Amino acid sequence: MSGRDAGDAAARMPPARVGDRLSEVDTPALIVELDALERNVAAMAAAVEGRGVRLRPHAKSHKCPDIARRQIAAGAVGVCCQKVGEAEAFVAAGVSDVLVTNEIVGAPKLARLASLARNSSLGVLVDDRANVVALAAAMREAGASIDVLVEVDVGAHRCGVLPGAPAVELARAVAAERGLRFAGLHAYQGAAQHLRRPAERLAAIARAAELAFETKVLIEQAGIDCGTITGAGTGTFAIERDSGIYTELQPGSYVFMDADYGRNERADGEIRFEQSLFVWTTVMSTPGPDRAIVDAGLKAFAVDSGMPLVAHAPGLELAKASDEHGVVRVAAGSAGPKLGERLKLVPGHCDPTVNLYDWIVVVRNDRVDALWPVAARGALT
Amino acid sequence: MSGRDAGDAAARMPPARVGDRLSEVDTPALIVELDALERNVAAMAAAVEGRGVRLRPHAKSHKCPDIARRQIAAGAVGVCCQKVGEAEAFVAAGVSDVLVTNEIVGAPKLARLASLARNSSLGVLVDDRANVVALAAAMREAGASIDVLVEVDVGAHRCGVLPGAPAVELARAVAAERGLRFAGLHAYQGAAQHLRRPAERLAAIARAAELAFETKVLIEQAGIDCGTITGAGTGTFAIERDSGIYTELQPGSYVFMDADYGRNERADGEIRFEQSLFVWTTVMSTPGPDRAIVDAGLKAFAVDSGMPLVAHAPGLELAKASDEHGVVRVAAGSAGPKLGERLKLVPGHCDPTVNLYDWIVVVRNDRVDALWPVAARGALT
Repeated sequence: MSGRDAGDAAARMPPARVGDRLSEVDTPALIVELDALERNVAAMAAAVEGRGVRLRPHAKSHKCPDIARRQIAAGAVGVCCQKVGEAEAFVAAGVSDVLVTNEIVGAPKLARLASLARNSSLGVLVDDRANVVALAAAMREAGASIDVLVEVDVGAHRCGVLPGAPAVELARAVAAERGLRFAGLHAYQGAAQHLRRPAERLAAIARAAELAFETKVLIEQAGIDCGTITGAGTGTFAIERDSGIYTELQPGSYVFMDADYGRNERADGEIRFEQSLFVWTTVMSTPGPDRAIVDAGLKAFAVDSGMPLVAHAPGLELAKASDEHGVVRVAAGSAGPKLGERLKLVPGHCDPTVNLYDWIVVVRNDRVDALWPVAARGALT
Repeated sequence: MSGRDAGDAAARMPPARVGDRLSEVDTPALIVELDALERNVAAMAAAVEGRGVRLRPHAKSHKCPDIARRQIAAGAVGVCCQKVGEAEAFVAAGVSDVLVTNEIVGAPKLARLASLARNSSLGVLVDDRANVVALAAAMREAGASIDVLVEVDVGAHRCGVLPGAPAVELARAVAAERGLRFAGLHAYQGAAQHLRRPAERLAAIARAAELAFETKVLIEQAGIDCGTITGAGTGTFAIERDSGIYTELQPGSYVFMDADYGRNERADGEIRFEQSLFVWTTVMSTPGPDRAIVDAGLKAFAVDSGMPLVAHAPGLELAKASDEHGVVRVAAGSAGPKLGERLKLVPGHCDPTVNLYDWIVVVRNDRVDALWPVAARGALT
């Protein structure tokens, strides 16, 4: 038992071969339409280029070094991750500039982070004084150093210290520790990303930027450089970009998009990223004219942000999901799909959907162009 | 690219070592309390023994051969699976009597099923005439044979033909095919499992049993043996057991239980299966007295059936989850947990939660007793 290794766990073989027709790819499978993904990567790069901000896309969405390399080739400075295990997977794949946009708590994880920091350019967040001390001790123990950003709660009410004095105090604590380099503020307003109306998103990010700026000024008044203000997601990145305050942007979902982002109303001139990510399914039962059952359910797509949509099929709605089944409702007057027919689903939420798959089947012109491992799939710790 | 194998995908190392203290297990991790699991396995075995029905637990819940072996050692005849890939994982691990309680559609999957049927005792469902023909052809091609059950829609309105004449017609089609052995009816009433009141569950299963029995009589009048009536889940198995009609029971969740099953009211004398499955988490941020943030979110537990509960912590409620964070609300007057403190979560829905992990950390007396691979994790096809 104690000798068990990863080989006992279930890494899956690729679900297709390069050159296969899409119609031959067995289901359910996670597919990415490469043309759309490339256009999304290029559109984001163009939107940021020459605007005085760095692009550091969030890799928690794709968990895939093949995609990170394309983002970096298009101008990104590196990636963000949420977990030490994700950072390990990206560094192992050659992506060596990683900001862990999360607090890392507990000696085992801190030791892993410190070990990784010896051979890569790492950053991490803090929002607690005792955690700063533990982080610094781990770095010194490993003979490593790391960029540290203070996470400020600018409205998401998740992690983070309050803006102003509490952030200044923590910045001082970081700056005082050997092994830690105080780098700036993490000011991500996650709650703003899915506000449906552009004006709501603008107001939320304006407030976040104001809080971040006031805090930065206080820190610099205390004699500590506060070079980086990082944050932003796919729903708001243009607002942070144009704020004059944020220096780094972390959008993740834009490479894929999902049904939930699709429900955001866009501002005038806002980029329309394309849906590139789909769950490829087969109709496995046609019990009546009003419904068809697909072979994908709760283990093939996340439902936290609602059911997937059925792409290119206006009369079909994914009404219900159980563990391994999706119940597609056929609108009155619509022709239902046939047994064995393939349907493409647009996931409700891309990030937790991608995490259900070992491979991304990359498709161009209805052929499998590549198979990309989801290298950080299941990297929970 | 075409040479890529499973090694490129991410099978994870075990998150602990046998003998570790539970407090040393890094988080998030999926833990099973072995005493509780063993009592659940024994209680189900005792509930079925001598009652004239077979127990064939559903392995879609646990995806874990170590658990299947314990169920079989306690008297189960084999297991159920939903996917060919799951059946492959169980057969490879030595569990060779598997009923795939699902329709299998498409030539690649049928070929895999037929290949597997050559060296194991397999069953599968059908609800479509053309699928019967394709299944039979695949079996003959492989020189294999398989038990086939007609799935009857007894109220769940998912897959399945209607009871009565349509089922008889399909049974005839199966019986006429070389390579297929008509074995009986699959009459699972999934929609009944989480009806909250015992009387509602009783009424739903009484109706399902009636429909199954009428159909069985018609099939036998047509001169075809209809030996097996299989179905039932953790919420209703005692009703099917006592029906005099069902010959085989397929409960799965009882080994673990979850918050959703915990909301079912129990009938007098109904077994109280124990919660054995937990998500082990760490408090990673304590931003204020009213909330604490744990290091587990949508990638560490399923939320389709509601948020997880915080075990043994009456003042704490998991109010919200994002991809990698859970926001725990601290009730007024309750002491919030401290940074680094561990919390045990009861998953809302066990099956899709287990599918997020490569390993089950098996705990007895606060020590890691074993590490069980979730061998069929991600077995989607």
